[in-house]
Amino acid sequence: MLDVDVPSSISTVELADKLGRVSGVKAVNITVTDTDVEVLGLVIVIEGDNIDYNGVKGVIEDLGGAIRSVDQVIVGEYILEINPQLLKEK
Amino acid sequence: MLDVDVPSSISTVELADKLGRVSGVKAVNITVTDTDVEVLGLVIVIEGDNIDYNGVKGVIEDLGGAIRSVDQVIVGEYILEINPQLLKEK
Amino acid sequence: MLDVDVPSSISTVELADKLGRVSGVKAVNITVTDTDVEVLGLVIVIEGDNIDYNGVKGVIEDLGGAIRSVDQVIVGEYILEINPQLLKEK
Amino acid sequence: MLDVDVPSSISTVELADKLGRVSGVKAVNITVTDTDVEVLGLVIVIEGDNIDYNGVKGVIEDLGGAIRSVDQVIVGEYILEINPQLLKEK
Amino acid sequence: MLDVDVPSSISTVELADKLGRVSGVKAVNITVTDTDVEVLGLVIVIEGDNIDYNGVKGVIEDLGGAIRSVDQVIVGEYILEINPQLLKEK
Amino acid sequence: MLDVDVPSSISTVELADKLGRVSGVKAVNITVTDTDVEVLGLVIVIEGDNIDYNGVKGVIEDLGGAIRSVDQVIVGEYILEINPQLLKEK
Amino acid sequence: MLDVDVPSSISTVELADKLGRVSGVKAVNITVTDTDVEVLGLVIVIEGDNIDYNGVKGVIEDLGGAIRSVDQVIVGEYILEINPQLLKEK
Repeated sequence: MLDVDVPSSISTVELADKLGRVSGVKAVNITVTDTDVEVLGLVIVIEGDNIDYNGVKGVIEDLGGAIRSVDQVIVGEYILEINPQLLKEK
Repeated sequence: MLDVDVPSSISTVELADKLGRVSGVKAVNITVTDTDVEVLGLVIVIEGDNIDYNGVKGVIEDLGGAIRSVDQVIVGEYILEINPQLLKEK
Repeated sequence: MLDVDVPSSISTVELADKLGRVSGVKAVNITVTDTDVEVLGLVIVIEGDNIDYNGVKGVIEDLGGAIRSVDQVIVGEYILEINPQLLKEK
Repeated sequence: MLDVDVPSSISTVELADKLGRVSGVKAVNITVTDTDVEVLGLVIVIEGDNIDYNGVKGVIEDLGGAIRSVDQVIVGEYILEINPQLLKEK
Repeated sequence: MLDVDVPSSISTVELADKLGRVSGVKAVNITVTDTDVEVLGLVIVIEGDNIDYNGVKGVIEDLGGAIRSVDQVIVGEYILEINPQLLKEK
Repeated sequence: MLDVDVPSSISTVELADKLGRVSGVKAVNITVTDTDVEVLGLVIVIEGDNIDYNGVKGVIEDLGGAIRSVDQVIVGEYILEINPQLLKEK
Repeated sequence: MLDVDVPSSISTVELADKLGRVSGVKAVNITVTDTDVEVLGLVIVIEGDNIDYNGVKGVIEDLGGAIRSVDQVIVGEYILEINPQLLKEK
């Protein structure tokens, strides 16, 4: 799960389409969390097999965006979710 | 997921029906979020394969509506949902 | 999902029964949200195939009721629900 | 879903048993919501096929109870639930 | 669902075991809700077929406990749960 | 579900491993709820068939721990959960 | 479930990848809970069979990190989750 800023001029539909074509990517979810004049704050979740992480970074940076932080990484034989309420309790 | 304004005179039943006929669209959900005298605030979720995004825009604009923002885009082999509580924690 | 007012004299059991017989209707859920002396505030959810919307309107109006607003319309190959928490975040 | 008052002297186990025998009734859920000296406030949910509504009323009234209101009616080919959070948003 | 008080000296493990042996009982859940010096407040949920309700009462009373109230009764062909949020809305 | 205190020096990984070997135990969940200098507060959930309860007690006490209370006991043919929200309503 | 601090210079993608290669590990979830200048606060959940716990510790320490606490341990034939709401009630 990536915390990303992109120029508000770009189209999230186009960004999602390009990320969907990166090697190893099976599914992409882009959710807009902040909308300022210049910048869109996005949470991007990407799932796949042997995702080309540098390819993902490249697509975002080519469109003028930047990865502010990697908030969650899940690897392994299956998608191991964590119950947000357990996090909240912590 | 689109954030859309339409004139309060139009019928959301009619809008849903027209969006359902756009190429690639499999299902449409229109939820009214704001009701003013002149304008209805809608959240529209559309799912399908190779959705004709410009066709969707056209239907909304032909009825006098406007897409205020694209709040969420999901592409790929399956619908990758994000847990709203994780967003909330962020 | 319809937001409906009906006279408090009518029977919601009878209203549900009549709505269930409208062409294309497969299931009906009537939930009472407000109870005043004269008027019952109802949320009515109807699911089906090619629902005769005017038929639905007719049943409600024949019993002295009125559709205040259409709050949600879902069309397509399947019932596309929207996560209420995502709406709430918006 | 019925909102019912019964004398606090009666046994909800007995009431449930009798309601379970009414024609068309498949399942009954009686939940106590209020407990006063004289009166028990109950929420009764009944599911079945072609439920004999008057039979249900009769059982409740024979035990000295009264239906204060019908809060929810669901008819059709399947049980169409409504998401309580959507109601709450309204 | 029973609201029960028992002396704090007794073992809930033993109580659960004995309730599990009552005729018709398939499963028992004892959850401690209050802990005082002398008394344990318990919520006991029992599921089964043709449960010997008097047998249940007997086991509890033999261990010095008392049923304060029957909070929920479910009968019929299947376990008909009620959505706690619907109760809350009421 | 057991409410247990153990010395903060012991390893919960080791405790879980030992509890997992007690006769009848199929699965163990140890969740840390309180962390003080000397003592760890744990909630331990154990599931199995004919669990040797004294064996469980023995393992905990051998590591210097103590069972403060038994908060929930479930017996029978299946695991009968209780909806925490129903408890909360009570 | 481990509560871990790592230097903010390290890549959580790399950490997840290395943890995924430890003997017995089937799936890893790293969620960032705190972001300071020097240190990243992580919650790491690891699932597998006969996980080499020391191997896990080694990977974290080799990258300059430290396990602050083990918050939850689950062992047995299946993953026995605990309902966070039950914890909250306690």
